[in-house]
Amino acid sequence: MRVVLATKNKHKLLEFKNIFKESLEILSLLDIGFNEEIEETGTTFIENSLIKCKKIYESVKMPVLADDSGLCVESLNYEPGVLSARFGGKNLTDKERYELLLTKLDRNRKHNASFVCALSLYINPNRIYVIQEEVKGEITFEPKGTNGFGYDPIFYLPELNKTMAELSAEEKNRISHRAKASYILNKILQFGI
Amino acid sequence: MRVVLATKNKHKLLEFKNIFKESLEILSLLDIGFNEEIEETGTTFIENSLIKCKKIYESVKMPVLADDSGLCVESLNYEPGVLSARFGGKNLTDKERYELLLTKLDRNRKHNASFVCALSLYINPNRIYVIQEEVKGEITFEPKGTNGFGYDPIFYLPELNKTMAELSAEEKNRISHRAKASYILNKILQFGI
Repeated sequence: MRVVLATKNKHKLLEFKNIFKESLEILSLLDIGFNEEIEETGTTFIENSLIKCKKIYESVKMPVLADDSGLCVESLNYEPGVLSARFGGKNLTDKERYELLLTKLDRNRKHNASFVCALSLYINPNRIYVIQEEVKGEITFEPKGTNGFGYDPIFYLPELNKTMAELSAEEKNRISHRAKASYILNKILQFGI
Repeated sequence: MRVVLATKNKHKLLEFKNIFKESLEILSLLDIGFNEEIEETGTTFIENSLIKCKKIYESVKMPVLADDSGLCVESLNYEPGVLSARFGGKNLTDKERYELLLTKLDRNRKHNASFVCALSLYINPNRIYVIQEEVKGEITFEPKGTNGFGYDPIFYLPELNKTMAELSAEEKNRISHRAKASYILNKILQFGI
């Protein structure tokens, strides 16, 4: 199946092309000349991924793949959630953003957190698959690692004794929230729909 | 995995128990003593299936399986859609409801239609799978068949030369919108999540 991935980010495009190389032919928004800004007005990851799919589908009338991801911290009532990328304002650097988040947390206790990813394949308005998965971890007050992006340096994975930003691309592609969701969607496509 | 199915309907419970017999242990709302009415305020099948899941999950804190289904008629701008079960008012019989629908349609043309089913498995707020599938057909002005329910007698399947209400339970469980969505969800569960 030929699909458009709702991203202008080349790294994300390559990552998805690699994951779905056996099951999907993936184009980017640049490939199809889609330039509109899409407002992510949803209150959940699933809503936001579907808002992107619908908007693009209505314009190009071909299947769309879109994800929406974020960090949910238990002691912050699962925030920043859908606001993760905008937390503290759009113009912050990743470092400023996660440092701001740390100031909201009591340093004397443990903070369970999850990275969550909703991945939607919108074949047409009636045929839609949504897979939302998570990876569990803890917030560390000692940021570490230079791989990845966003909150990765403060997301600590106890089982690996590493932050998400210390994982290699290969490791991250095996255990991350986006990897888990992609794996399941890929399985659906491989056994045929 | 042990899940609650968002239904009080015994036939639906048996149907789902049969489909998922290898992958899920299914309880009904009656089994767990859940009696609240859930308002289906969503504008899409997916939203409504997730509203049911969330409400029940928050009460019982165990995985929930919920579906929302309906009929979408192309020439009616894909209505009645999420309002299918309430079209014309809650107190109509199935026959009164589909007869009312027929009065809205021009008898001199063909009306493409789809039965759509969104099936959601809500394991927890971060792990959610939604599969929405359809079966395509046409509206017939000559209702036929006594199996099934709802709009089945006016939903004609050209390939089978039968209405949905003329199918045996076995046939319907092979080709219906709910069967397709269930089949995919079951595959996900069978290869392990």
